[in-house]
Parts: sequence; structure tokens; C-alpha cells
Amino acid sequence: MINHRGPEFAAVMDDVIGGMRWALRTDNDILLYPCSGTGGLEAGVVNLLSPGEQALFCTMGSFGDRWATIGVTYGAEVVRLTVPQGEPIDPEDVERTLAEHPDVTTVFVTHNETSTGVTNDLAAISGVVKSRGKLLAVDSVSGAGCLPLQTDELDIDVLVTGSQKGWMSPPGIAMIAVSAAAFARAKTATSPRVYFDFDREKKYQDKHQTFTTPAVSVMYALQEGLAMLREEGLENVWARHARVGRMIRAGVKAMGMKLLAAEGHRSDTVTAVHSPADSPEALKSLLTTLRTTHSLVLAGGQDSLQGKIFRIGHLGWIDDADAYTILSLLEAGLISTGLRTRGGLAVAAAQAEARGGVAQAEPVTVG
Amino acid sequence: MINHRGPEFAAVMDDVIGGMRWALRTDNDILLYPCSGTGGLEAGVVNLLSPGEQALFCTMGSFGDRWATIGVTYGAEVVRLTVPQGEPIDPEDVERTLAEHPDVTTVFVTHNETSTGVTNDLAAISGVVKSRGKLLAVDSVSGAGCLPLQTDELDIDVLVTGSQKGWMSPPGIAMIAVSAAAFARAKTATSPRVYFDFDREKKYQDKHQTFTTPAVSVMYALQEGLAMLREEGLENVWARHARVGRMIRAGVKAMGMKLLAAEGHRSDTVTAVHSPADSPEALKSLLTTLRTTHSLVLAGGQDSLQGKIFRIGHLGWIDDADAYTILSLLEAGLISTGLRTRGGLAVAAAQAEARGGVAQAEPVTVG
Repeated sequence: MINHRGPEFAAVMDDVIGGMRWALRTDNDILLYPCSGTGGLEAGVVNLLSPGEQALFCTMGSFGDRWATIGVTYGAEVVRLTVPQGEPIDPEDVERTLAEHPDVTTVFVTHNETSTGVTNDLAAISGVVKSRGKLLAVDSVSGAGCLPLQTDELDIDVLVTGSQKGWMSPPGIAMIAVSAAAFARAKTATSPRVYFDFDREKKYQDKHQTFTTPAVSVMYALQEGLAMLREEGLENVWARHARVGRMIRAGVKAMGMKLLAAEGHRSDTVTAVHSPADSPEALKSLLTTLRTTHSLVLAGGQDSLQGKIFRIGHLGWIDDADAYTILSLLEAGLISTGLRTRGGLAVAAAQAEARGGVAQAEPVTVG
Repeated sequence: MINHRGPEFAAVMDDVIGGMRWALRTDNDILLYPCSGTGGLEAGVVNLLSPGEQALFCTMGSFGDRWATIGVTYGAEVVRLTVPQGEPIDPEDVERTLAEHPDVTTVFVTHNETSTGVTNDLAAISGVVKSRGKLLAVDSVSGAGCLPLQTDELDIDVLVTGSQKGWMSPPGIAMIAVSAAAFARAKTATSPRVYFDFDREKKYQDKHQTFTTPAVSVMYALQEGLAMLREEGLENVWARHARVGRMIRAGVKAMGMKLLAAEGHRSDTVTAVHSPADSPEALKSLLTTLRTTHSLVLAGGQDSLQGKIFRIGHLGWIDDADAYTILSLLEAGLISTGLRTRGGLAVAAAQAEARGGVAQAEPVTVG
């Protein structure tokens, strides 16, 4: 550990902030908080909203619901736009909701919903929100650094991400890109806050420090993660996630399972799959077998999706080799639990998808 | 990293919670938050107080002031008991203040004030607070795990500490021991909160999980730090800190410098020293020389003590060898900047103190 108020830490922090600006395509300030992604979501609410202020929360799963709950807790007048799980937010619905609720000052939306494996069309949503002059806050905890994201081009006022996802670091730091308009709003927002206060944090960061003791070891990891992203090139990182996402989905479908997320909005960082088992208990048993016998840790569904789906995370330090490994182990687990009988289908489909992916510049015949 | 909702993480967490109960001498629940110590202080306020509720904040330095600021920010009616920097809180003052303000429901006090190197007499303060039936919240971020502390014997309702101090881990987790009375208070407290909500966190921890993504890598370190404390034995850890504290203070005084903290209340984890230089610039120059030429990183003063004092941290993974190293490097720096001319004084004094320390069971002639 080093003194977090000394020049060595300041150099690490400046490097991380510069890297985050590069990766998020933004000139905005980057605030670094020692907290989880949920802490970042709370920071967005308490700095942008005052009690009684009307705000639109677009929710398509557990993390969108969580953000809306934070809004309600801090006394905002929360307007919800909710879609069935697996569906994206329709920009036309945002347009209509804003027309019906002209007092809404701020729109909160999830970029990539980890609980359902759905990615929103942020550009279209931003177009609607900005044409009406609202502030836009985006939860991109599991999207940024993996999926194409242009923070300044989309005029995003508060963009929240977390060290443990695309940044290939342990959990412990939320990174928040804050626009000048968001800082201006924070000056008048009356929700009580100290730990998550934007203005206080910025005053310290302008002196190359943080308000409270930073998560130093995670900061080192973040610096290295950003260096790795720079070396690979951001467009290559995005292309790699897109290719691995297609491979995973092709493999899952080849095993006869169905995806939760709607076609055209399937996430390239997490895939949610309808349970191939006939009961929540059988699904739990499959996940346990995968973990204990096949060394593959997959997540179940959250909240109302518990027992109904499982999820495959494929972001950060991941490539084709990992996709083949995940699919092979999953297929082996399905066979050993009697849910499937034939092997090799998933990898064959993923291989074909990878060939197609490689061949985007120069088409080849696939299959 | 491992799945933080799986059995492997649950085992780590259970071990950490068991270790924290052992180290804090408590049967209370231990809540683990991914945040800095300041986040833990905010958790104490928002779960115990409602807007308009009267609370006493005993402040003897920057961290006490910070806690009171959090109280004000969340709308509590804050009664302050402030003492000059370097002085401890006098339990009789607490008694008198509580008599003058019978509506106070809760007392917030710093165990060990990092900004001034003062340790409070928690037992006496607790006696006063508890005889009047108030809740007691204690900031022991830089005390717990190093200084004698009996959470349950002192009937402390909220005890906040942080991974980066006595627990020998990187920063990133605040550990909070919460009494049944504190949980009961939290049920009715109306300060808005989600991230720091005790009740929500406890519901998850009862399922061997955390509400949001935990700081997994710091949790591993905490598990190892606690194992090391268990191996050494807590009384031995306390005795080691007491001895090193005496050695550091003896060495500093032997170099002709003066301690900020009042006699009898000097901290065994951090020593604040009046500047030996004749200006803030000369002190800054000394600290820079120590850092760049002598590889010794010391902290300056915070807030109103900036330019007036420097501070030596001596807690966690520290022993006699470190005390000699620190004192030797400091003395070398004082000589190289022309503030002192003779060497060896500090180490000689510390050696004598260590002999006295070792000899507590069997007295020897010292000096």
C-alpha cells in the first residue's frame, strides 16, 4: 500500500482517470468511489434529484428496478417505464412517456441489464431524451469497456461503471463520468449525501486525491486493466466481445436451449438462458453439478427469474478459447445430468460462428 | 475472483465475520460494506438518526468533525462537544452535556482520532452514555484490532472499523458491529438510505451473501489478516502496539520534539508531532526530503493542523524493527535538513523503552 495523499498515488489516479476518459470516449470528469456498482447508482440519484422531483426510470430487470427503488427511497416522484423481462426499452415508449410527464427532469436507464442479458439502443434513447432537454443517467456497470459506448457523443450526464466488469479488476471501485450539466444540477439538488457527493469528490480529485481512503489495491488493478485495453485497442475489444457473444449464443442454441433476451438486443457480455430443466430444483441441481463436477460456475436468475433461467457471463478477460471451454463444460454437464445426450454440438456451432466472425471483412462460406 | 453468490465466497465471509466477532469481543452482527471508513460513519448516522432527532457528536479532530458534518447533512439536530486538538473527550463533559440536552438519543464518539493521535477512554464514556440509556456509536477505524476494545462489555451499539488499519489489508471494506438495539432503532429511523441500510444488508448476510457486489480481493486479505491476529493472540497484538507506541514516542521526545496529544491519552497507533521546522514550508520540505531521500513516508496535518504537525502511523503489521527503522530514517532526515545535528538519540531511547516494555513481567533497570 502507498500513501493515498502522496504523489505516487496521484500518478496512479491520474493514469486511471485518463484511461477511463479514453475508454468511455469522454472529456467529462471521472469520479472514483470506493463502492460497488450499486453505490454508483445511488450517487447518480442523490446528486441529480431532489425530493419531490419527477424522474423517469426505465427498467427492464433487477438492476433497473434497484435504481428506481433508490429514487423512491430518496423521495423522488418516480415515473416507471417497465418492459417484460427479456425485452429492451423501446425509444418510442420513452418519447411517449416523456410527452405524458413533461415535469420529468431526468431519465435513468440501464445500458446492459445483467439480470436478463439485454442491451438497450442507447443512441436512440439518448436522442429522445436529449431532444426534450432532460438529463440522462446511464447504468453501464456491465456494458462499458466491453460494448461500443460513446459517452460524449450520446451526451450522457452520469455514466456509472464498476471495476469488476469490463475493466478486468476486482470489485471495489465505481467509476462515474459526470458532465458539466450534472455538476450544475448537483449544486441545487437537495437529497442528503456526504459519501457520494459529486461536488466534494471533485474538489479532492482536482487536487489529485480522493475525499475518503481509496481502494488502493483495486486502483492498481484498474490501471493495469486499462493498460491492457489500450494495448489491444478499444475497437478490437468491442469486436472480441461481439464475437464471443455470438459464439456463446450459437452454442447455447445448438444445444436446443432458448435465450431470454429478444433478438437484436442480446447482450455481448452476459447471456440469459431459459432453464433446460423441468423444475427450479432440477435447474439448481444442474448448476451444482456444473460447479462441483465440471468446475463451471454459472449464475442463476435473480428475483422473479430465480429457478427459471441461468446466466453465462462473458466479459472482460475473455476470448474464443474461453467460449469453447464454457460451452464444452456446459454441454458435458447437460449430458451428465441426463438433460442432453449428444456432445460436440455447441462447439461446432461456436466454431462456425467464429469463422463467420473472423470473416466479416472478407466473407467465407460458413457451416 | 469467485462468484460472490456461491458457497466458496460464503465460506470466506463466514470466516471473516467469525474473526471480526472474536477480535471485537462481540456477539453482535458484523456488516461488511464495500466502502471506506467514512462510508461506515455515514452508515452509522443514517441508520440511527431521523431528521430533527437530537444527537451528541463528541469531536476532537478531523474525523470527529466529519461525523458531525454527516449528522448535520442528514438533518439531525447536532449537539457538539468539541475539545482542543490534542485533548481527549472528558467523560464528565459528556455527562454534563447529556444533562443539558435530555433529548439526545444517541452519542457518536471517536475511539482513536487519527488526525491528532489521541485515544479516548471509551469505558468511562460508555459508562456515562449507558447510564442515561442512550445508544452509543463509536468510530474505531484506526483503533480496533490494535488497541484494547471490548465491544459488548462497553455495550457499543455501532462500532465502525476499516480493512486498511489494524486488519493489515488493503482499503475497501468497512466492518460494522451492530447491536440488537441499533437494528431496532434502524427500523424506525427515517433518514433515506439504500446502499448503507443495515436491515437490507443483514437480510443478505443472513443468507451468507452481501446486498451488493463485495470487494472480494480485500475480503481475502481480511481473512488472512484475521488468521494472523488469531495466531499471535489478541492480547499479544495489543501489547505489541502498546510497546511500539511507547518506543516511537520515546524516540520522538529524545529528538527534542513535542507530542500533540495530551499525556495519558496518547495513541498507540498514530503519533502526532509538533513540527520541528519554523514554517509550514520548512515542514513540507522536511517531509519531501524524508520521502524522496530517506524512503520514509509520513503524513502532514489535516485541516487546521496542516503545516503545524506531522504524523507517524504505527499500526497493523508493525513491530520493534519497524519502530527502529522509522526513528532512524526520521532522525537522518532531520540531520540532512539541518534541523538536528546528533544521531542515535532516538534509537537509544526506543531501545530503553523496549527493554522496559519487555520487562513488564520481570522489572529490570532501564537506561
